Amino acid sequence: MGIIVQKFGGTSVGSVERILNVANRVIQEKEAGNDVVVVVSAMGKSTDELVRLASQLTSKPSKREMDMLLTTGEQVTISLLSMALIEKGYDAISFTGWQAGIETESAHGNARITNIKTDQLRSELGKGKIVVVAGFQGLSIDNQITTLGRGGSDTTAVALAAALGADKCDIYTDVTGVYTTDPRFVKGARKLEAISYDEMLELANLGAGVLHPRAVEFAKNYNVPLEVRSSMENERGTMIEEETEMEQNLIVRGIAFEDQVTRVSVIGLPNELTTLSTIFTTLAKNNVNVDIIIQNTTSDNKTTISFSVKTSDLEDTLQVLEQHKNELQFERIESESGLAKVSIVGSGMVSNPGVAAEMFDVLAKENIEVKMVSTSEIKVSTVISQQHMVSAVDILHTAFELSKTTARV
Amino acid sequence: MGIIVQKFGGTSVGSVERILNVANRVIQEKEAGNDVVVVVSAMGKSTDELVRLASQLTSKPSKREMDMLLTTGEQVTISLLSMALIEKGYDAISFTGWQAGIETESAHGNARITNIKTDQLRSELGKGKIVVVAGFQGLSIDNQITTLGRGGSDTTAVALAAALGADKCDIYTDVTGVYTTDPRFVKGARKLEAISYDEMLELANLGAGVLHPRAVEFAKNYNVPLEVRSSMENERGTMIEEETEMEQNLIVRGIAFEDQVTRVSVIGLPNELTTLSTIFTTLAKNNVNVDIIIQNTTSDNKTTISFSVKTSDLEDTLQVLEQHKNELQFERIESESGLAKVSIVGSGMVSNPGVAAEMFDVLAKENIEVKMVSTSEIKVSTVISQQHMVSAVDILHTAFELSKTTARV
Repeated sequence: MGIIVQKFGGTSVGSVERILNVANRVIQEKEAGNDVVVVVSAMGKSTDELVRLASQLTSKPSKREMDMLLTTGEQVTISLLSMALIEKGYDAISFTGWQAGIETESAHGNARITNIKTDQLRSELGKGKIVVVAGFQGLSIDNQITTLGRGGSDTTAVALAAALGADKCDIYTDVTGVYTTDPRFVKGARKLEAISYDEMLELANLGAGVLHPRAVEFAKNYNVPLEVRSSMENERGTMIEEETEMEQNLIVRGIAFEDQVTRVSVIGLPNELTTLSTIFTTLAKNNVNVDIIIQNTTSDNKTTISFSVKTSDLEDTLQVLEQHKNELQFERIESESGLAKVSIVGSGMVSNPGVAAEMFDVLAKENIEVKMVSTSEIKVSTVISQQHMVSAVDILHTAFELSKTTARV
Repeated sequence: MGIIVQKFGGTSVGSVERILNVANRVIQEKEAGNDVVVVVSAMGKSTDELVRLASQLTSKPSKREMDMLLTTGEQVTISLLSMALIEKGYDAISFTGWQAGIETESAHGNARITNIKTDQLRSELGKGKIVVVAGFQGLSIDNQITTLGRGGSDTTAVALAAALGADKCDIYTDVTGVYTTDPRFVKGARKLEAISYDEMLELANLGAGVLHPRAVEFAKNYNVPLEVRSSMENERGTMIEEETEMEQNLIVRGIAFEDQVTRVSVIGLPNELTTLSTIFTTLAKNNVNVDIIIQNTTSDNKTTISFSVKTSDLEDTLQVLEQHKNELQFERIESESGLAKVSIVGSGMVSNPGVAAEMFDVLAKENIEVKMVSTSEIKVSTVISQQHMVSAVDILHTAFELSKTTARV
């Protein structure tokens, strides 16, 4: 009994049949005595179709008009889902982002939610209605329709849950929960019963892909309990909440990985205070997303800076650096593609020194060369050869005993 | 120099290529020094596609949710057209119905416009922008998205023209103007240079189909000059405005016709004051649209009421009447399908008695039996056999000299 926010992504509402299935999931929560708010994305590939239409008209669409265009996708889904619920005998009402009181910055394409006026939603919930809200969209203070960027519907759901003081926010997706690592690659991958916000943040940022980092951050800030679960199957998913009695004696909780990584080294730079900022400001201005950064100063007062980028960004990266050669005064650039990033994540690391060492040791025993390292309080990332990626994940998964559920306190 | 409102229907914006063509028509007016407001419908068959989706979920969709669903269609078009205009180097901005300040009744599916707040539009026009507005939609006082019903985009355009004090409202469509009769059937059909609001109203109501009657009524009430013209060809269309120096000595200005008409006669009704109202209230409550009504009282104080309906409504009509047989106390019902309605329209009739007689005379000479007659000040409608429809229109077109342009004063 309480308020439940449910979020269903594009795949979960991708057809009339799936919308009917979603309606049943919603009714289940309603019948359990809860007030239900449902947040939905655009149906399946409909957003891609709209983007394709726009691309036939212009190669650089106005961001404002793009928001105007794309927000129709969720509006279609909310009306169809409401119709399905009404047809099944439940009182339902749909709201666009602006009708739901979702206020955002005056930025198009990637606006942040600034406030949610919940009066209208509360009033409808008070009448016993199921409220269906369009994800991904809001209204800026100057009455412009805005969108929240990638993973926007997750953010809408979590923000609504926070604003309504919901008991829980369920993120329904096409997987059954958060896994210790990707089950498509590692046989022993196990679904986690629970994980902390910080761990999920590291996993989300590391490309686990089930949940958008912004939504997790929002949930952490407002302490909204999340559950990631399947829209197709009825089993329990993974709870994401403040660490309490979770699997605390598991030092490593998950392993994330991604391929198509390239290391770029800028060699023989003058060792000046502004070198770092110059390089990375220049790259950022040119929309090159840099991941791991390593700096090494050599004895001749020259410095070498290495960083990793997506392989698809390599060409742009080299071009930008060459354009600024006079300014940066480096000697030469080396790059190596065909790399992958493998990261272990777990909040237990903070109080368990030696986890990184153990990771390196495991990899060394398998003759896997570590080419870059980056650490945070709750994760260790290594860059290795792409051909070793899957086997590295596999042996790390075994070494850190991630297949075992018995470790739960 | 002034404000021009342009309206483009679904066919005119049915593809990316056609949107680019529309953009060029808009730019033409802008380059001529005008402030331009463009009203567009949903692309081609996209509304049908949305209706199909809804029909897969429910046979009786909530009207509110249907409005939520259908209004996405125009929102897609406004954003795409704005992108096309921006790509061509013009400053354009799109507005949904609610953003454009279009306020309506709190009715879904068929709301009337109650007010238009033009501040925002005026402000954007003041900045030199081309303003693109979604047709067919508005916002009720309780913040609900509403639609204006059939021909809604025409009404949006005319209402905006009235509210903005526009110099002209151009209705772009897939025909080149208003014709003396349907050129697909009558070779001599001629495009009219001008026509009065009242005449257009009769023609629109009689199924000429180029312009929705509600839009014409709005234009008449606010004295907005309309031009119906082709979105594909550059020729002048037909002006619709207060009768001034128009083709006044043409008594008949156009001939409208439609097939699939059925005559229903309710025979042997008691001749009571309430009979008429009982019959037609009952039919209206059951959504049967009655067109021509004729009453005949016979010597035995019994009455016979005949009326015409669309043939597709015949079954419903008979069922409703039989259900109320006890109440209505009629003797029997007769019906005749396979009929058509042919009407002559012209404001000159008011001052020219004998036009109806001439029409009957022309039809009689061709051995065409007139089965029902209905007249107004500026039109005469006859119901005849469907097989004679086209030839009747043809001979009337010739008899009233509609092919001749020389009649213009």
